[in-house]
Amino acid sequence: MSDPRVRSIDALECIEVRLEGVRPAGEAIPWVGRRRYLHAGPPLGLDELPGPMRGALLGALVFEGEAEDLDGAEALVAAGAVEVEPCHDHGCVGAMAGIVTPRMPVVVVAAAGSRRAFSPINEGLGKALRFGSNDAATLARLEWLAQAGAPTLDRAIQASEPIDLTAMIAEGLRRGDECHNRNVASSASLMGRLAPAVAEANPGSEAARVLAYGFGNRHFFLPFSIATAKLLADAAHDVDGSPIVTAMCGNGRRLGIRVSGLGRDWLTAPAPIGDARFFDGYGAGDATPTMGDSFITETAGWGAFALAAAPAIVSFIGGDVDSCRRLVDGMRRICATESGRLLIPGEGFRGTPVGIDAGLAARHGIAPVVNNGIAHRDAGIGQVGAGITRLPLEPFERAAAALAEQERAPSGSGGGRG
Amino acid sequence: MSDPRVRSIDALECIEVRLEGVRPAGEAIPWVGRRRYLHAGPPLGLDELPGPMRGALLGALVFEGEAEDLDGAEALVAAGAVEVEPCHDHGCVGAMAGIVTPRMPVVVVAAAGSRRAFSPINEGLGKALRFGSNDAATLARLEWLAQAGAPTLDRAIQASEPIDLTAMIAEGLRRGDECHNRNVASSASLMGRLAPAVAEANPGSEAARVLAYGFGNRHFFLPFSIATAKLLADAAHDVDGSPIVTAMCGNGRRLGIRVSGLGRDWLTAPAPIGDARFFDGYGAGDATPTMGDSFITETAGWGAFALAAAPAIVSFIGGDVDSCRRLVDGMRRICATESGRLLIPGEGFRGTPVGIDAGLAARHGIAPVVNNGIAHRDAGIGQVGAGITRLPLEPFERAAAALAEQERAPSGSGGGRG
Repeated sequence: MSDPRVRSIDALECIEVRLEGVRPAGEAIPWVGRRRYLHAGPPLGLDELPGPMRGALLGALVFEGEAEDLDGAEALVAAGAVEVEPCHDHGCVGAMAGIVTPRMPVVVVAAAGSRRAFSPINEGLGKALRFGSNDAATLARLEWLAQAGAPTLDRAIQASEPIDLTAMIAEGLRRGDECHNRNVASSASLMGRLAPAVAEANPGSEAARVLAYGFGNRHFFLPFSIATAKLLADAAHDVDGSPIVTAMCGNGRRLGIRVSGLGRDWLTAPAPIGDARFFDGYGAGDATPTMGDSFITETAGWGAFALAAAPAIVSFIGGDVDSCRRLVDGMRRICATESGRLLIPGEGFRGTPVGIDAGLAARHGIAPVVNNGIAHRDAGIGQVGAGITRLPLEPFERAAAALAEQERAPSGSGGGRG
Repeated sequence: MSDPRVRSIDALECIEVRLEGVRPAGEAIPWVGRRRYLHAGPPLGLDELPGPMRGALLGALVFEGEAEDLDGAEALVAAGAVEVEPCHDHGCVGAMAGIVTPRMPVVVVAAAGSRRAFSPINEGLGKALRFGSNDAATLARLEWLAQAGAPTLDRAIQASEPIDLTAMIAEGLRRGDECHNRNVASSASLMGRLAPAVAEANPGSEAARVLAYGFGNRHFFLPFSIATAKLLADAAHDVDGSPIVTAMCGNGRRLGIRVSGLGRDWLTAPAPIGDARFFDGYGAGDATPTMGDSFITETAGWGAFALAAAPAIVSFIGGDVDSCRRLVDGMRRICATESGRLLIPGEGFRGTPVGIDAGLAARHGIAPVVNNGIAHRDAGIGQVGAGITRLPLEPFERAAAALAEQERAPSGSGGGRG
């Protein structure tokens, strides 16, 4: 019998993901619609939204025109007038709060067949809805993105040569990015591909504003990176018996993972805070526990799993270069393979670890580590730090146990296969 | 008595170089004028120009309107109707052939006081005058740059926030460039700073062409990098008794170096070919020996001296990552200091070696290594390879001997100082 991991690894390693466009979420994602929104992490009730996710949802209701102000938005939430589901259940991944509403522009990536994945466009530095900000400046920028910035980028994508995002991530590793917490070179690279078409098709001042937004945003590339990872991870999902992890995410309360051979069930644990470097004036007491879908990069073999390619990142997240290398080496012990296309130049072009194997994690007692951003626990404040987080091991152990159980009694959960 | 190296090191380490503009060489560089052109490397007679430099000069004469065609240009050269002097004697550095004529756009960089340095703008990939190409396509691209591309970039520079090129080179090292043979991330970074102003001030199709030129050129940043290095090296020059090397360059026949305490004299040796990786179909027999001024990057503490920051470069120039690290370590033995601002993230943010000390080179018997590009020995063909070259030790030994002699008899060459 062949290794059940093979088909998952094929998906993670071989699919080329191309950039399709930037579209309103309500057009791109079938389920998203009026008062049907997405959030980051595993499922969560409206009554248990953590501070920044609640802040983002309130801002989003105003942005959508559902409420005149934040008080009106509070009333809607209190009345249960909004439905929320996980991004992950709709081919989407959202950084931090990950609130996605119909008018929000999402990056659309595609691969052969009908595979698609989505992620809300990055708003830029400073106060941003994804960190729970919802003041007038936050909403005005989002409005500009929805009305002008994103449509301009979409037209530029349509007018430009096709962009292979998997190749761009591989090149990002050669440019000192790990494409999760460090995206600075890749952001310039992607915007550079689109810039001629942006200039060609738009009045000068409008083109200039879009270019200033993109080139001025060190995380412009992040949603392109995580949407790519989501497409790969979804393609690796639902392989009978496969212990490969296909989602890891947090909702500020619980951490959740999915494993390829275990269907759509989430295995959860309390969300950790991790080993963050806090911005001046903030500390662990200000932090929302792990929140966001961006650990999908580690799930797909980059982010913290490529940390040794991005040594300059330690000035942002702390640690030192040797600890980056050790961390990547640790991840090699729990991954099914080393990438043939994501290479770490400074390690002699050795591939990044790809394909977290829940069985290996359980056997070695090593949980994955992820890069992350830290939002303030209260709505309206924003990012207060960034760092490295070791996820709790327990969901991986439970996944391994469930797979072992399945193997013993395949007809129970495998529908008579095997 | 204080260490005579200190003032040279201060210059290399402390001066901030800013981008001033892109101007026609005939406006920016006083000596350059009608039939008064510059070339790379130490001085050279018109009768001994190597193939690609001759090819570039002939093309330049047509570009300047001095001759109708290459035959007419040959006749002018044969008649001695052109004067040529080294770029280095005019605050300029030119990659490869380094032919600079009045209509050619040069990058202008500046620092406090009246310090300026110059380098011809990079024409882009493929056939380029700097590699000896001079066909119609080469001249047409140069014509477009002179008439449209460079003036557009200059206006964008004037309209943008000031650009600190020393900071951009330091960031380049964090993005996997060594800013000599690998400039890909820095090119996107610099163009990204200028792109909004380019789009703002120009009709869409013209802005698009300039953006496509800049973002499509992996070496767009090179002249900005080498002009910065030239300004720093010139500022480090002419310090009594200082053994710090302030120029290393080749003219395809001879390699030449200058040393801070030895005035304007060149110490020369036959130009080496070095350990190049040749493009398919070419070999050492096709190569022009070392040619160009771009070793000024190594002179100023980056390029090959920062090779360990750019491990991805080995896929272009050969070798492996460990050899890059060993090479940088070797350079530490012959340099006066380690940079406080040019840091190698993958080596725990250790500074690059800065300030080649001719005395240390002679004492340890270690000559500097440089990254380089290889031009075909014949005119009109272009680049055939790239690699790492160990320079001949002998000029460094002679410099050390001359400085020791000076110290014994200071009134002889020092004008009664000391």
